[in-house]
Amino acid sequence: MSRVYNFCSGPAALPEAVLKKAQAEMLDWHGAGVSVMEMSHRSSEFMSILASAKARLSRLMNISDDYEILFVQGGASTLFAQIPANLANGFDAISYVDTGAWSVKAIAEAKKYAKVNVVASSKEQGYRTVPDFSQLEIDPDSAYLHLCENETIGGLEIFDLPQTSLPIVSDMSSNILSRQIDVSKYGMIYAGAQKNIGPAGVCICIVRKDLLKRSSDVLPTVWNFATLAANDSMINTPPTFAIYLADLVFEWLEEQGGVAAIEKLNIAKAEALYAAIDASSFYSNPIDPKYRSRMNVPFILADNSLDALFIKESEAAGLRTLAGHRSVGGMRASIYNAMPMEGIQALISFMHDFEKRHG
Amino acid sequence: MSRVYNFCSGPAALPEAVLKKAQAEMLDWHGAGVSVMEMSHRSSEFMSILASAKARLSRLMNISDDYEILFVQGGASTLFAQIPANLANGFDAISYVDTGAWSVKAIAEAKKYAKVNVVASSKEQGYRTVPDFSQLEIDPDSAYLHLCENETIGGLEIFDLPQTSLPIVSDMSSNILSRQIDVSKYGMIYAGAQKNIGPAGVCICIVRKDLLKRSSDVLPTVWNFATLAANDSMINTPPTFAIYLADLVFEWLEEQGGVAAIEKLNIAKAEALYAAIDASSFYSNPIDPKYRSRMNVPFILADNSLDALFIKESEAAGLRTLAGHRSVGGMRASIYNAMPMEGIQALISFMHDFEKRHG
Repeated sequence: MSRVYNFCSGPAALPEAVLKKAQAEMLDWHGAGVSVMEMSHRSSEFMSILASAKARLSRLMNISDDYEILFVQGGASTLFAQIPANLANGFDAISYVDTGAWSVKAIAEAKKYAKVNVVASSKEQGYRTVPDFSQLEIDPDSAYLHLCENETIGGLEIFDLPQTSLPIVSDMSSNILSRQIDVSKYGMIYAGAQKNIGPAGVCICIVRKDLLKRSSDVLPTVWNFATLAANDSMINTPPTFAIYLADLVFEWLEEQGGVAAIEKLNIAKAEALYAAIDASSFYSNPIDPKYRSRMNVPFILADNSLDALFIKESEAAGLRTLAGHRSVGGMRASIYNAMPMEGIQALISFMHDFEKRHG
Repeated sequence: MSRVYNFCSGPAALPEAVLKKAQAEMLDWHGAGVSVMEMSHRSSEFMSILASAKARLSRLMNISDDYEILFVQGGASTLFAQIPANLANGFDAISYVDTGAWSVKAIAEAKKYAKVNVVASSKEQGYRTVPDFSQLEIDPDSAYLHLCENETIGGLEIFDLPQTSLPIVSDMSSNILSRQIDVSKYGMIYAGAQKNIGPAGVCICIVRKDLLKRSSDVLPTVWNFATLAANDSMINTPPTFAIYLADLVFEWLEEQGGVAAIEKLNIAKAEALYAAIDASSFYSNPIDPKYRSRMNVPFILADNSLDALFIKESEAAGLRTLAGHRSVGGMRASIYNAMPMEGIQALISFMHDFEKRHG
């Protein structure tokens, strides 16, 4: 079959141009006579790829020299433990914001390392909104303040950071590079690659250099942020092919006009889809409109007995993976950077048609 | 340039047939309309790939139901810490064999978790041989006995396991699937993928099920062997593309006639190369002939002022990455499963020619 519109929450759609370039270079990267997968990570060729990926990301996100860019293995779920293991060393407590399923997972891991104070939560609101940050009581002796800036499952996004003297540590796995942010407001940003960056298997970490002093030598060597930084993310063999694809995605993003341009497109895509949902009584989205995610758009059908048919017919129409997360059901359209406006229009058109026939 | 003979120690050469298949399926896996990289790890398509990889590995290595096969992120260096964190829980000491650089690294990490008894070492012999296993004094209360079955840097391979009542934990990163072994003699086998299995980014672990009881809930969730086993290696998003390539490599290996057939070829390849080295006074290999690695063949030139020229001319002759490890210098030919006999012959022919011109 030909390529479809892929609404998977992750591993997610990659730009077709990136896949085609990787395909063309698969057996012979730039005349080296071998695939990127077959190169020593310490070869001049791979070192140039790693340097390019870091330089492009720095340009795209306007990252200053106050920060280190690390490529870490294990996914964001590993970082849920690795971050407190590094950054809470010497502290009694950590502060966490709770806005949904991924916040909850991060909190559970952090509790293995220090006392976790949940300083704000929208659990009582069914995670349909972002808690009020104006009244936060944050222990100033906390190691850091953690939040998940886009809840992939719930479809909730934080657009304004809380005011705090603590370093803010943000899980941006599902919205990194989707909109402009001021990196200097963060102590650390981390993101699993498999939504807006590349294939699963690598996690991008942007860590303020002064925080590296917190890492202790008792940590597993490959977990130690300071050692990773000192070794340019190459304590051991990094996931070279995933880093190569990340570099190609960054290159593609620069060609699209960078983050400012993709943000404009992402706003237009999300507005079009939410408008279609809101205009119908057949579809609905439960999230406080101010905090609706631009990346993950969950919606439910008024009659959930039609769910299976919706999935079946949408797949047949070339719209892949619209089922909601197994923990919540319903539908979810994940519309990361690689999803073109044409995909949104195809989805809206299918939704109208389905409603006409079954509504 | 056309494809070259790639002697890299890792990430290492992959079978060209595997790369071509991955290339052909890059934008559309089996009619799914998306790349394997773009699929949910919980999709039926990816679940079939994971199941296939496990089934093929079980067949290739004759792994019984007493063992779990896990796909773990972070590389073997992560396992150096993750293994004692899981398997030494509740034990005071662990026993390690020291046969070279990778043993030393594993020991250093293990010391963070328990007292390490080095029960045998060939350090005093410059790691040129394997210590005598007949006189081992192993504390029977140790958590396990660890060894590195093939020292990639030194070029030393252990062909016979020590006798012990302890579970044997073996790092087979650089010789897994290169020869037939009896898995039932092991408590655990682990191997980073990037030599004989696939691209960097995944580590294969074969763990005897009774050892899973040792894992404690205080571990980071993604590090917990028991939780990994209970979740079929999918606590979080696994490195899906690396697992897909591993499955293709396993398929290729089955097509070659399995491990018995590749072992025969590997013996012939290694014998040919060592014979060429031994027949010359221009080249030499320092390792006790009984324990010479079939996978990594280090050799030095009698006149090391010719090293740079050897590297330059061999690269020009389409023989890539023959420089020895940066810690030891000299040359090293890594000749894993994917290296055909033609590559060995091309190397020997070049070595003869180089000696004739410069010897």
